[in-house]
Amino acid sequence: MTAYDRLTARFARIATVREANSILSWDSEVIMPPGGGDSRADQQAVLSAIAHGMLTDPATGADLAEAEAPDPWAAANLRLMRRQHARATALPADLVEASSRAASRCEQAWRDARPRADFAAVAPLLTEVFARARETAQALSAVTGLAPYDALMADYQPGVTAADVEPVFARYAAFLAGALPGAEALQAAGTPLSGDFPVEKQQAFCRMIAERIGLDFNGARLDVSAHPFSGGTQADIRITTRYDPQDAASALMGVIHETGHAMYEAGLPQDWRRQPVGEAAGMAAHESQSLILEMQASRSDAFLAWLGPQLHATYGGDPAGYAPANLARLWRRVERSLIRVEADEMTYPAHVALRFRLERAMLAGDLAVRDLPGAWNDGMRDALGIVPPDDRLGCLQDIHWYAGLVGYFPSYTLGAMAAAQLMAAIRRDRPELDTELGRGDFAGLYAWLRPNVHAMGALLGFDDLLLHATGKKLDVADFEAHLTRRYLGGSA
Amino acid sequence: MTAYDRLTARFARIATVREANSILSWDSEVIMPPGGGDSRADQQAVLSAIAHGMLTDPATGADLAEAEAPDPWAAANLRLMRRQHARATALPADLVEASSRAASRCEQAWRDARPRADFAAVAPLLTEVFARARETAQALSAVTGLAPYDALMADYQPGVTAADVEPVFARYAAFLAGALPGAEALQAAGTPLSGDFPVEKQQAFCRMIAERIGLDFNGARLDVSAHPFSGGTQADIRITTRYDPQDAASALMGVIHETGHAMYEAGLPQDWRRQPVGEAAGMAAHESQSLILEMQASRSDAFLAWLGPQLHATYGGDPAGYAPANLARLWRRVERSLIRVEADEMTYPAHVALRFRLERAMLAGDLAVRDLPGAWNDGMRDALGIVPPDDRLGCLQDIHWYAGLVGYFPSYTLGAMAAAQLMAAIRRDRPELDTELGRGDFAGLYAWLRPNVHAMGALLGFDDLLLHATGKKLDVADFEAHLTRRYLGGSA
Repeated sequence: MTAYDRLTARFARIATVREANSILSWDSEVIMPPGGGDSRADQQAVLSAIAHGMLTDPATGADLAEAEAPDPWAAANLRLMRRQHARATALPADLVEASSRAASRCEQAWRDARPRADFAAVAPLLTEVFARARETAQALSAVTGLAPYDALMADYQPGVTAADVEPVFARYAAFLAGALPGAEALQAAGTPLSGDFPVEKQQAFCRMIAERIGLDFNGARLDVSAHPFSGGTQADIRITTRYDPQDAASALMGVIHETGHAMYEAGLPQDWRRQPVGEAAGMAAHESQSLILEMQASRSDAFLAWLGPQLHATYGGDPAGYAPANLARLWRRVERSLIRVEADEMTYPAHVALRFRLERAMLAGDLAVRDLPGAWNDGMRDALGIVPPDDRLGCLQDIHWYAGLVGYFPSYTLGAMAAAQLMAAIRRDRPELDTELGRGDFAGLYAWLRPNVHAMGALLGFDDLLLHATGKKLDVADFEAHLTRRYLGGSA
Repeated sequence: MTAYDRLTARFARIATVREANSILSWDSEVIMPPGGGDSRADQQAVLSAIAHGMLTDPATGADLAEAEAPDPWAAANLRLMRRQHARATALPADLVEASSRAASRCEQAWRDARPRADFAAVAPLLTEVFARARETAQALSAVTGLAPYDALMADYQPGVTAADVEPVFARYAAFLAGALPGAEALQAAGTPLSGDFPVEKQQAFCRMIAERIGLDFNGARLDVSAHPFSGGTQADIRITTRYDPQDAASALMGVIHETGHAMYEAGLPQDWRRQPVGEAAGMAAHESQSLILEMQASRSDAFLAWLGPQLHATYGGDPAGYAPANLARLWRRVERSLIRVEADEMTYPAHVALRFRLERAMLAGDLAVRDLPGAWNDGMRDALGIVPPDDRLGCLQDIHWYAGLVGYFPSYTLGAMAAAQLMAAIRRDRPELDTELGRGDFAGLYAWLRPNVHAMGALLGFDDLLLHATGKKLDVADFEAHLTRRYLGGSA
């Protein structure tokens, strides 16, 4: 057995432990009784530490030093193994375990505190999360040479730094200042959807749409959680949403979004299953796959023309509400929202830019966690001119920080931009796309995405993946053109 | 840190990995989509191997050789650690992993094959399970000096051997031959329960009863699975049942049974959580705790007098059916059943005796797995004079063998006998018990069981636990007296 073969066996085992942890994580968000929280935090911390121990085992380092890759995919795999190993050996096992435990406890407390808008109840736990994140960032910075924040961001979207993101947000802020008043002025009010939206009907409809997109429920589940997510494993994908019996759209859009993530996971190269190069190319790439469905395909004129009658047949009510032009007025409405996950795609990056700024400040220690609510509210006022009435609608709305995810947020906006760029490329390569979407048929979309994006795994970095798929690296122009066409040009 | 302290930390970590595996196992039986089966088998096998590796690590052996226990509980803990270590070091890691994988695959296939009565579809997988069990038994036999079957049985109820069980079954067979015709002759037909038994109502009723018994749903769940079980962890107990909308009793009795298991887990000594001495005293002890609820307390005249009106208020229908005397006719009916889990307590040990004989023969290689259906049907004819029409009602009915549990079955009957012995002792110590049960009040029952059984953990072996709690070792006379009183004496 060669050193490289030993490494693939070892990394498959590490991935299998992580799969187990992913199911435990899903369970804790969907199923677990509250009394199980402390035990679960222990279980997840121990599994994290075990995976970390396998990765940092001296035998792994020895094999990595000796291994030679037999082909280009294996070379990429080996490079990703080396990166994981370098990052992991930078972190002492007790820090990994303490971080996992702090995040599990904080996330449990957040689940309890959010409905009560009780930031004070979680602030000490979130302070602990950021303290651990700071230690982690410093340790990673020391071995990678990246700035501390960039070193964390590299866990989610390797190869992209705050310095890459800052001009993107600056250009966006300028674009938004010019475009937002016009978009708001141009839009007409939609007729609200009427009908009967009981949760059971919504569940069945959401499942039908997910299946139509291509999700195979022989290896997937759709459940309910406080914060929608896509989890589980490649063979056992678990997406969640939340249902509002007064609103047929929010759960549906959530499911479409999470199905985009799920389709990416399902389409990753089987030959490289449980290997680093067989994973997704990063979270910005992942977000591009959820947003190309949720924002690009599903809100296109073509798809809305198919979806409207389906919705009306399911929920009844005034047919005028389900007319495609009305759905476009409802679902392509630009509206300054307090809630990120409910934001339109034009103002969404403003939410991300705020979080990007605040998490950098908290990580650096320039902003105390206890001062987060005030800073958040000031930031919302500056960015969008609106202020949350309480922290439930403010800094408690997102799970990320409470679950220990710092450096994740920029991926959302990079993903939105990549989605626009990919969609422009697909429309060029596949002129029949809108005809297909007009039949509720996603096979053509995935016939393009599977080989060009999904099957590439993590072979290429974010920019190189875009170059491979679209012929150019990330180019914000496609996103601006999309927004301009959809919100200022009257068609999409 | 002393060697003993290092061992408690290590065994806590092992227990935590096992907790994770227990949640994954629950998930695979209750939640998992079918496509996840192969991946899950890998995940569980890897976690089993990791726990096994921690147990067999040379450092564990070195600490065990050196450790000294500071007190009697610690001495028992250390003794149990040494026993686990000796058994684990007898088993090579690849055998542990192969056994886990074979069992996971076979169990998945069984889930599919049972409704179709398709034994042929699982026979090769079950052959594999028994082949691995044979290797395991031989390896354990070599280090423990126990016979191979006894070495497996010791995993479930340490200290009890086939030689202990054989005379119990022989005495029982003689008792049954004398008692069964009389019991059948004495009993009157009950009026079937009428009313409306939708699954939602049954779920709510079962949950109410479990709460009344004492199960705290802040740290527990009640779900549905093909074969009812009690799983999860001490802080996150997961019981399951299956509902039949034509029958209000079977799910309820299942829940009462599993709640007995759950109460035992919940009552184990918190000070010894995640330590060997903090676990249950074995599966016969565990079964005594499910059966003292299901067979002893819940079918007592006193409890039925409370339960009848509760059931009638919930389900409606003819009140005559819910009269306590009628419930006794229905639920204390002796009837030769094809299905073990539906058997009455008088004939139940005959089902166990058959499985005890067949699993010993398959393990020894005296019976080929492919010949199991015929041997099963012959055995049922000999024991109870009835023959299953298909394997769904025959050798496919129980999950145990398909999930890799060989040597488990005798625990059911040892548990039934222990339950009768414990109940006789409680009635002596606590004359007000039946008054309490007549109010649907289980607090008194658990006020006795908690200190005398639950809080003892695994400090004592099965016989010594009975001696501690009841003043004598296992004595079949209490079980026979109970059956005689209830089925031949007209009261209970």
